[in-house]
Amino acid sequence: MNEFELIEYYFRPLSIAREDVTLGIGDDAAVLSVPANHELVVSTDTLVSGVHFLPHWDAYDIAYKAVMATISDIAAMGAEPSWLLLALTLPDNNPAWLKRFSQGLSEASAPYRISLIGGDTTRGPLAMTLTIHGFVPKGEAISRSGAKAGDRIFVSGALGGAAQAVAWLDSAGIPQPDREAVMEKLLHPKPRFDFLPILRSFATAAIDISDGLGADLHHICQGSKVGATLTRQAIPIHPIVNQYQGVTAVDMALAGGDDYELCFTVAEKCLPEFRQHCLEMGLTCSEIGVIDKTPGLRMKHTSGDVTPLQVAGYQHFG
Amino acid sequence: MNEFELIEYYFRPLSIAREDVTLGIGDDAAVLSVPANHELVVSTDTLVSGVHFLPHWDAYDIAYKAVMATISDIAAMGAEPSWLLLALTLPDNNPAWLKRFSQGLSEASAPYRISLIGGDTTRGPLAMTLTIHGFVPKGEAISRSGAKAGDRIFVSGALGGAAQAVAWLDSAGIPQPDREAVMEKLLHPKPRFDFLPILRSFATAAIDISDGLGADLHHICQGSKVGATLTRQAIPIHPIVNQYQGVTAVDMALAGGDDYELCFTVAEKCLPEFRQHCLEMGLTCSEIGVIDKTPGLRMKHTSGDVTPLQVAGYQHFG
Repeated sequence: MNEFELIEYYFRPLSIAREDVTLGIGDDAAVLSVPANHELVVSTDTLVSGVHFLPHWDAYDIAYKAVMATISDIAAMGAEPSWLLLALTLPDNNPAWLKRFSQGLSEASAPYRISLIGGDTTRGPLAMTLTIHGFVPKGEAISRSGAKAGDRIFVSGALGGAAQAVAWLDSAGIPQPDREAVMEKLLHPKPRFDFLPILRSFATAAIDISDGLGADLHHICQGSKVGATLTRQAIPIHPIVNQYQGVTAVDMALAGGDDYELCFTVAEKCLPEFRQHCLEMGLTCSEIGVIDKTPGLRMKHTSGDVTPLQVAGYQHFG
Repeated sequence: MNEFELIEYYFRPLSIAREDVTLGIGDDAAVLSVPANHELVVSTDTLVSGVHFLPHWDAYDIAYKAVMATISDIAAMGAEPSWLLLALTLPDNNPAWLKRFSQGLSEASAPYRISLIGGDTTRGPLAMTLTIHGFVPKGEAISRSGAKAGDRIFVSGALGGAAQAVAWLDSAGIPQPDREAVMEKLLHPKPRFDFLPILRSFATAAIDISDGLGADLHHICQGSKVGATLTRQAIPIHPIVNQYQGVTAVDMALAGGDDYELCFTVAEKCLPEFRQHCLEMGLTCSEIGVIDKTPGLRMKHTSGDVTPLQVAGYQHFG
């Protein structure tokens, strides 16, 4: 099989049948229907070899991470993913790589019933652009711009694990279980679709943590024209990060990207009902601070001191 | 301004207001509505430096061509373009380049009221992936798979101009008006949206000629599980190609990609009405052959001989 036949062979099965797909992969364009009373949510992400992943990685992991990073944006909007387009640029014809890549793509997409509806394959330096579509009930999408002074700031999960994995990429002598625990966060992140009903009911603003809590909360503040004060000891830090980074663990939790947890805000008056729902749904999240009128990010230390927080944009790696 | 501010500055104005855009560029994802009784049409295309364009080209031309190549897929489905996502990978921060690129993007998109609804910017070898959306009245999309034996094959415009421009890229001594005439075809192709009403009413299958007439007609035949016989002297050849290529002009017209004209099929019984409509709309196109039951492509020569036609896939350049 030549390269195009291989791509057809491996990728065509990912074009799973869905009621809303009239015409899937293989034509000039896909033909689709958005369910009644829903809005369409669309996002695009490029992953470049050496920047967002390393070229020697298992192609399964590259594909898996690419899908998760992409659908995480959909989760942050309060939407459910539906359709994926894959534009793949490959340096050479490598059937074994394509096979593993398509496996990762399939296993990442299948649990969400995401259908591969189109794509493009080109020759060039290894890179991929994924465009993901999803649906949200009309008027229920959550943007970055709805946070108001007094809203409380929440974050799902524990932070810094993926950044610790990146920091360890070139290090020897790390105990294997510790390395594996954080590599799992880096390679196989799990977007927080379990928070979808909570977000839709309670979040005034939301974002997924791809650039780091500090940078992404800064995006919410800019979008909402507000500021924020975080409580240092409330920031949930991945246990491995705590163990190895000591007093600087919180910095890795704040600056480290690729965690794909959610940061969102909830109005003060809704807090009791919000907490009750979290309890009923078995969801845990951390209240890490409060939205202020004054622009900028601040950190409240255990001493009670409040200092300005510098936002370090996550640089990925490479 | 840093790079992200520059991108914001140049690209944000391309996020033009549209009724169907609830939330445009700048959030985790765009939020959109498809008009009632319409289907959504989506396509993605990657353009890599050195393959689909040359790095020293004016960034205006690169952007312009990228938009046109992309929306041409939408035209071939019988749809109208609406929303664009741009994933841009840049080797360095080049404000002058970004300015020209955004100008090309704007001037290519504005006539179609296309809104830039999202994107991604990454560092890496120069490349871009454009994802275009469009609308088509429910059930009226034209695929590659509807051609039937007996249908006549039509092509809009004249072919081979863009391929001639590529062939001349490294040549000196070509008269400037001749070079400019075909460079215009290569750099500023015009997708044939003027054929939209005709396609929706009459086409059984359609495709845009991006890979060359031979390769793209082959795609229709594969999609429709049919074959085709072309009439050699009926194939419309760009006058400059005729002038410079002599007897091999038809080969350039058949194999040359990037023309972005339309190839489509019309059922025999609809031909009189189809011709009447073309006349009334002032549209000219060439009847170049007929769809057969027998798979494969054939060429009928002026002698009356019919020979198999080899499909040379257009390799772009570089």
